[in-house]
Amino acid sequence: MTIAKTPAPPYFAVIFTSTRTAEHAGYETMAAAMLRLAAAQPGFLGVESARDSLGITVSYWDSLEAIAAWKQNSAHLVAQDRGRALWYQDFKTRICRVERDYEFSRK
Amino acid sequence: MTIAKTPAPPYFAVIFTSTRTAEHAGYETMAAAMLRLAAAQPGFLGVESARDSLGITVSYWDSLEAIAAWKQNSAHLVAQDRGRALWYQDFKTRICRVERDYEFSRK
Repeated sequence: MTIAKTPAPPYFAVIFTSTRTAEHAGYETMAAAMLRLAAAQPGFLGVESARDSLGITVSYWDSLEAIAAWKQNSAHLVAQDRGRALWYQDFKTRICRVERDYEFSRK
Repeated sequence: MTIAKTPAPPYFAVIFTSTRTAEHAGYETMAAAMLRLAAAQPGFLGVESARDSLGITVSYWDSLEAIAAWKQNSAHLVAQDRGRALWYQDFKTRICRVERDYEFSRK
């Protein structure tokens, strides 16, 4: 996983923060499939993910319409149902407009 | 670390995504001090953080002015300098307006 190479703002971000249940079966496979599927959607710009006690996945999109379409993707709807049924203790999803960004790279 | 209990949108988020160098000395102490200091700033709403190969820290604020004031906090400026000098290979900071959110909690 690397820092997403997003274009100049404005663009949009979905911050998905979660805690997991003790049920791990099927999770990694589904998470990897959803990352691949998201990356193939129109308007997808990139994704960043990390987990220790908390999981944070931020996906970047070129429009709110692209985010809405991804939320309603049929395979993603199945994954969301399974997440609520099995894998997530709690989650919060925040839809954001990225107004400004800056970066640092070591030479 | 738990999911931040933020108020109803709109509010603001700073997504700080980073990769680390091999230099670990002093990092955890500074990171913990900066979390405590951020939490004491006017307009601070909460923070979420996770690291595996990538580190993602999202802090939440009630205004862009609160974010600008935190960026210029003198102890935080020292930490930012040290981060660029020692601890971070690359980072990207994105300033966002949270437009909408929703959540799930297992009963």
